[in-house]
Amino acid sequence: MKALAEIQVIPIGVGVTVRDQVRRARQILVDSGFKIEEHAYGTNVEGEMAAILDAVKRIHETLHADGVVRLSTAIKIGTRTDKDSTLESKRL
Amino acid sequence: MKALAEIQVIPIGVGVTVRDQVRRARQILVDSGFKIEEHAYGTNVEGEMAAILDAVKRIHETLHADGVVRLSTAIKIGTRTDKDSTLESKRL
Amino acid sequence: MKALAEIQVIPIGVGVTVRDQVRRARQILVDSGFKIEEHAYGTNVEGEMAAILDAVKRIHETLHADGVVRLSTAIKIGTRTDKDSTLESKRL
Amino acid sequence: MKALAEIQVIPIGVGVTVRDQVRRARQILVDSGFKIEEHAYGTNVEGEMAAILDAVKRIHETLHADGVVRLSTAIKIGTRTDKDSTLESKRL
Repeated sequence: MKALAEIQVIPIGVGVTVRDQVRRARQILVDSGFKIEEHAYGTNVEGEMAAILDAVKRIHETLHADGVVRLSTAIKIGTRTDKDSTLESKRL
Repeated sequence: MKALAEIQVIPIGVGVTVRDQVRRARQILVDSGFKIEEHAYGTNVEGEMAAILDAVKRIHETLHADGVVRLSTAIKIGTRTDKDSTLESKRL
Repeated sequence: MKALAEIQVIPIGVGVTVRDQVRRARQILVDSGFKIEEHAYGTNVEGEMAAILDAVKRIHETLHADGVVRLSTAIKIGTRTDKDSTLESKRL
Repeated sequence: MKALAEIQVIPIGVGVTVRDQVRRARQILVDSGFKIEEHAYGTNVEGEMAAILDAVKRIHETLHADGVVRLSTAIKIGTRTDKDSTLESKRL
């Protein structure tokens, strides 16, 4: 099932600056082969729903392995049956 | 990996009232055996991260099979390595 | 205009534990006189839309004055014209 | 107090397609003079926190006046005291 998602990873307890951890999370999304749209409040992703959710799990596993103690991730994910969803088509 | 999550399913295109679809989504979470905390803006869930994310996928599959054309789900999911997270312990 | 909202305040840079800051934020909501429903992923609030949004601003001002350097708040807010919304009526 | 926000307006009960209402909401943000970054899951905004939250209220008022019965809006809003936040600087 094709999905569009927004993923925002918030590392908690690494300090005021979270840029390195957020970059690492984004790289996992890029390496997963999804179509990507980056913006100031997260990364938008186009791909299979199961693969997107699995990538979120791998982000948590990877960042925890890197020493991040606490992670809070906000995901918005949408699916529809009437037409193909693409990041491009969601442009107003 | 243990996680705490909040899941809010928004069916789009079924009308102003979305109660039946939201009930069906919640039932899938209950039937999955998670510890559950219901509230006005979603359902909080305690369980394995992979199982929680898989349940979200099954909610989309089930509601689409029921005829809902479009779904937008907001998920907040948190994990931590320093201690066990429970819905109970997150109480202030 | 009456609204129902969920407010989740995430202090960034205060350490892994954010309980004190989250308690302070919640107290501002309680002191504002809203009907409140607390849960593991935020505080649900019933009140006037303008008053709720103003309380969020006061939470940021107060926590910054307390020394919190960075705050990220997630708000869900809903309004409807067909009937009165209450936290109670949103129960499934 | 300067803030960065993401605003996602979800009209409920207008049908599967919500493009017209979302465009109208975005126009209110543009007309308010904020710096704007559009993406598939909302509109990112740079401006004064009070002005941003007031714009969200005006979006609800305007869309309800247009006949939208129910609105659910998701807002992420961030402030920090250590440096000026801009949409540009939040780029990874």
